[in-house]
Amino acid sequence: MVREDWRALVAAKRAQVAKGLPQEWRLPSSILDTVSATADISVLDVPAKCGLLTEKEIAITENHDATDLIAKMAAKELSAFEVTQAFCKRAAIAHQVTNCLTEMFFDKALERAKYLDEYLAKEGKPMGPLHGMPISLKDSFNLKGEYSTIGYVSFINRPAADSNSPLVDILLDSGAVLYVKTNLPQTLMTADSENNVFGRVLNPNKLKLTAGGSSGGEGALVAMRGSLLGVGTDIGGSIRIPAFCCGTFGFKPSVDRVPFGGQTNPVLDGWTGIMPVAGPLAQSPRDLRLFLETVINSKPWNYDYTALAMPWHPVEEKTTLTIGVIFECPTWPVQPTILRALKTATDKLKQAGHTVIILEKFPSFAAATELSWSFFDIDNKGTGFKHIEASGEPWVTSVKDMYTPPPEGRKDRSLGDLFDMNEERLQFRKDWMKIFVENKLDVIVAPGSHKTAVPHDTFRMPPYT
Amino acid sequence: MVREDWRALVAAKRAQVAKGLPQEWRLPSSILDTVSATADISVLDVPAKCGLLTEKEIAITENHDATDLIAKMAAKELSAFEVTQAFCKRAAIAHQVTNCLTEMFFDKALERAKYLDEYLAKEGKPMGPLHGMPISLKDSFNLKGEYSTIGYVSFINRPAADSNSPLVDILLDSGAVLYVKTNLPQTLMTADSENNVFGRVLNPNKLKLTAGGSSGGEGALVAMRGSLLGVGTDIGGSIRIPAFCCGTFGFKPSVDRVPFGGQTNPVLDGWTGIMPVAGPLAQSPRDLRLFLETVINSKPWNYDYTALAMPWHPVEEKTTLTIGVIFECPTWPVQPTILRALKTATDKLKQAGHTVIILEKFPSFAAATELSWSFFDIDNKGTGFKHIEASGEPWVTSVKDMYTPPPEGRKDRSLGDLFDMNEERLQFRKDWMKIFVENKLDVIVAPGSHKTAVPHDTFRMPPYT
Repeated sequence: MVREDWRALVAAKRAQVAKGLPQEWRLPSSILDTVSATADISVLDVPAKCGLLTEKEIAITENHDATDLIAKMAAKELSAFEVTQAFCKRAAIAHQVTNCLTEMFFDKALERAKYLDEYLAKEGKPMGPLHGMPISLKDSFNLKGEYSTIGYVSFINRPAADSNSPLVDILLDSGAVLYVKTNLPQTLMTADSENNVFGRVLNPNKLKLTAGGSSGGEGALVAMRGSLLGVGTDIGGSIRIPAFCCGTFGFKPSVDRVPFGGQTNPVLDGWTGIMPVAGPLAQSPRDLRLFLETVINSKPWNYDYTALAMPWHPVEEKTTLTIGVIFECPTWPVQPTILRALKTATDKLKQAGHTVIILEKFPSFAAATELSWSFFDIDNKGTGFKHIEASGEPWVTSVKDMYTPPPEGRKDRSLGDLFDMNEERLQFRKDWMKIFVENKLDVIVAPGSHKTAVPHDTFRMPPYT
Repeated sequence: MVREDWRALVAAKRAQVAKGLPQEWRLPSSILDTVSATADISVLDVPAKCGLLTEKEIAITENHDATDLIAKMAAKELSAFEVTQAFCKRAAIAHQVTNCLTEMFFDKALERAKYLDEYLAKEGKPMGPLHGMPISLKDSFNLKGEYSTIGYVSFINRPAADSNSPLVDILLDSGAVLYVKTNLPQTLMTADSENNVFGRVLNPNKLKLTAGGSSGGEGALVAMRGSLLGVGTDIGGSIRIPAFCCGTFGFKPSVDRVPFGGQTNPVLDGWTGIMPVAGPLAQSPRDLRLFLETVINSKPWNYDYTALAMPWHPVEEKTTLTIGVIFECPTWPVQPTILRALKTATDKLKQAGHTVIILEKFPSFAAATELSWSFFDIDNKGTGFKHIEASGEPWVTSVKDMYTPPPEGRKDRSLGDLFDMNEERLQFRKDWMKIFVENKLDVIVAPGSHKTAVPHDTFRMPPYT
């Protein structure tokens, strides 16, 4: 078998992706020419100003959150078709200025929206709690007939998915419209969403900054309001980092709560240790809740054998909370900006009547980060890196900066090492539980990172996630 | 350091244990002389006939389940003291004919019961949902001031526990009385509860048969009604096997639901793969529920960092269920007795109006057993066996029959092996989920074992648990 030149494969893939972008939704070169990874500009206002969206499309995409739009569609004030068209167009615009998408299937989305409108007319009720709502998916989720390249050149020639990820089935059964998949980093294990297949995601707030990762495409797309509800995945910050780099809301659920199964993974299926999760990015906190409540009320344990059979259970709503606050871990000092934001938040929480407890003693974030990285390196075969080698493509900068190819003759990690790591991890859990219980905490507020969005390829380690 | 002779250590330990058995509760030699591991007799009627229990003590221990007794104590119809005394005496009797106990602390129990009676008188309400109820614990649970030898000679010289297992704290906070710890097999990994420290548990239904294991002491004690509610642990059948060998109810909860932490373990704390759980044995199904509901309503996640933060959630009560039935797996044929019991049960379920689906196609029980044993053998150091070697005591017969000392130069299992095993295990989960979902099953009824209680040391592999 002759190994095809990886650049040729990429060129063909990019041409295929470009075909998904309708000619009439292309931005003028006056805008496109300003876009680059070194540009010191915000593109947040491009959708409203570029002239491609109608007044109504601007209103649909800017004046509501998902909860609101779904209610309007259920009340037939808006059709699923016009909502879908607005977000397809806005996502196409967002993509042209931030490179946030991997796959676009607008025709399928519009067809689905039409079907949902007919359904509502015929049945007199919405298909489900997400009826008509366009939802974006990180590229790793599988949708029948669409590709899941996850940024590996060696995955370009894989056939399109022949089945849906369980979470995709849940979203469809709940009435959602799927229209785009979003960009991510090579290996999915850095906070800079760049790969050789689709290129680099830019931060819409300032193009020269990172959008975060690994769900960086979601971060940029949701910040641009090209999606109001997107699905990412997170193991060491992959939802949370793009959310705070781009300025959206993001939530990492507990493990096994939202179906993670049936995705195209960079790692082995038998992976052990710290486990990844799926979760939402959105433009409002209540949309995060809408996503979680909908998924969990769908009984995900009937869709995915890794999902816990644990019903939705609202917690007691208190008027005042006991809030633990961590300003910084001495092992990873935070930037003054972050410190200021946390102190402002703390003051406001106190003023609102909450009890704030400043936490001074807690486990080392540096030690936790080191342990996490041992877990992320648990596969001696380095499967995630083998997928790079398979095509001859080079490592991208952020991967090169954070990982080193295992030196020849490196001693493999053993099961004994894993047991030791598990034990060390249990000690962290024990210490954190003690802090929660002894202080009777409802929640801990802490930095999402020691730094804000930074120039591309300089984010590196994420000790706070 | 000179290694003490293991027999001397055992003799000293047994003498210490014997001191916990009050002289006035000792059975006459006319009964004791009939007790042996080859005797073809039942001892279930000994408590009522031996003359040591008063009429009232017989009534307390024989006419109620725990739910009932707790209600009577709450209503002050019975005192915690008289209930505790009745069960202390009955447990002492059960022990003398089945060897089911490891530690007895009747004085402490009676003192606690007195305190609970005073509490109820003073506060006007019970301490909690288990107020006054004597609960037995498998030897592996830690209780301050008591030993946790778990049948290893090498553990005899360990100091008494200086803290409680989280589950023990929950039971105490719920008002329970703790009075005995129960016997188990060397390594905890066989279905014959024999070890060199405490000897062998006999089946009260017929002394020459196994009581099952590893929670065999609980099985025998609960069958004798020396306890109405006992706590065992289970990984491959350790609650379920003694429950059906002895004829009690037993329940293995899902992993991480009931706190398992803080026990004295035969294995490494960083253990991975198939995880053990704690759960109840009882004389009525509603007592199993009482145990689970009490533990989960105690918010075990505030006691044990391994317990899921998952509240008690009653399932919809249906009048008719869809029940899958497995008569046997062709890879492990079952005895005619078991088959007959299952067919009788199936007929009765049909007559009661339930939908019964006989399952013919399901994953191989032989393959699942083989995979489980690979998981149970995941520790290359063989820590559970090292604890035997440490004292020079021999392997007991059931351990010898089921395990072989690793041959010199055996190739260690690797992390890659673990990933492969995890993947194989996920396939089982996937297949079983499919059976549940496609048949819309509420529950599956299946054999607890391919055989009934059998003569000592012949139980061996438990493919059905």
